[in-house]
Amino acid sequence: MPTQQTPADNGVNVQALLEAREALTGAPEAAQFKWIASSTWMRGTHTRSAVEKFFGLGAEQAHRTTFEFDTDHPAIFASEDISATPVEMVLVGLAGCLTAGIASVAQNREIQLRSVTATLEGGMNLHGILGIDSDVRNGFDGIKVNYEIDADASQEDIEALVAQSQKRSAVFDIIANPTDVHVSVTKV
Amino acid sequence: MPTQQTPADNGVNVQALLEAREALTGAPEAAQFKWIASSTWMRGTHTRSAVEKFFGLGAEQAHRTTFEFDTDHPAIFASEDISATPVEMVLVGLAGCLTAGIASVAQNREIQLRSVTATLEGGMNLHGILGIDSDVRNGFDGIKVNYEIDADASQEDIEALVAQSQKRSAVFDIIANPTDVHVSVTKV
Repeated sequence: MPTQQTPADNGVNVQALLEAREALTGAPEAAQFKWIASSTWMRGTHTRSAVEKFFGLGAEQAHRTTFEFDTDHPAIFASEDISATPVEMVLVGLAGCLTAGIASVAQNREIQLRSVTATLEGGMNLHGILGIDSDVRNGFDGIKVNYEIDADASQEDIEALVAQSQKRSAVFDIIANPTDVHVSVTKV
Repeated sequence: MPTQQTPADNGVNVQALLEAREALTGAPEAAQFKWIASSTWMRGTHTRSAVEKFFGLGAEQAHRTTFEFDTDHPAIFASEDISATPVEMVLVGLAGCLTAGIASVAQNREIQLRSVTATLEGGMNLHGILGIDSDVRNGFDGIKVNYEIDADASQEDIEALVAQSQKRSAVFDIIANPTDVHVSVTKV
């Protein structure tokens, strides 16, 4: 196959990313971003969240449009099962972050990807969230991610792609390491 | 207002949850859940993830239907901005988890909720994910959540609702505390 003659095209504009890195190196204030979601309780355990504005490059930014996502609990928890659970949404975020990283790193290394699929599993002992045993944590007891990748590269090079993506993944870091969450409330 | 005479109805079946807690206390294996997402790289930084099956109560379970969610990077990162970013999806998960908890705890305490909205903000210094400064983390440098709640309760009781939800929130725990993430890859 003439893979050496066809430049890899994974649809990632790596040149723009390298230029952004160059530009932001000398502009620490522009590099300070703020990501925002707003949520509205619908009924029961059903919540609708919207994502639109964010801050970065020293100014308010906006997505192309407002993106809305529902979360709910499943029927076996006596809920309406209107959408995915909140913990599944975290897995969705992790999948999206690692996969975008894999595509970007592959582009930078001129590796053509053909398919990248993953299965993510998070174990959870409900004795935590149900308050049965205070020694059991509420969240996942661990997450396993398994990628299957078809690409013009060796197993070793593919593993290196995934490792580099993991090393630079925002969501991987948010899950793997502690993050301070401050919650306040106003009665209206 | 005859609030004492109308039972609180937030749409949460607390009786079923209390019965589940009772049942799962004596059945540790049934309480071991596994949440699953599967993802497919579309192109560029765009990924589509699906949530359908999960394991719990000792058996395979399924949502009412398959729920799909897209993630992408925004236009200022030279991407297509087809959906929310992966880190915004984590905020969506946090909002959904804390809000479902607030509704459930309010139901248990017989507090009628009228509206529950929240704004979640996660700060991030791009010097992390862009690999400019290895001392800067990839993920959020912190998350601020602000709830606005209209309910038949005092400010103090409303604050206690939120505090109890936070104490039992799976996503709050996943973000606030470290979780082991193991990533493997197979070349196909």
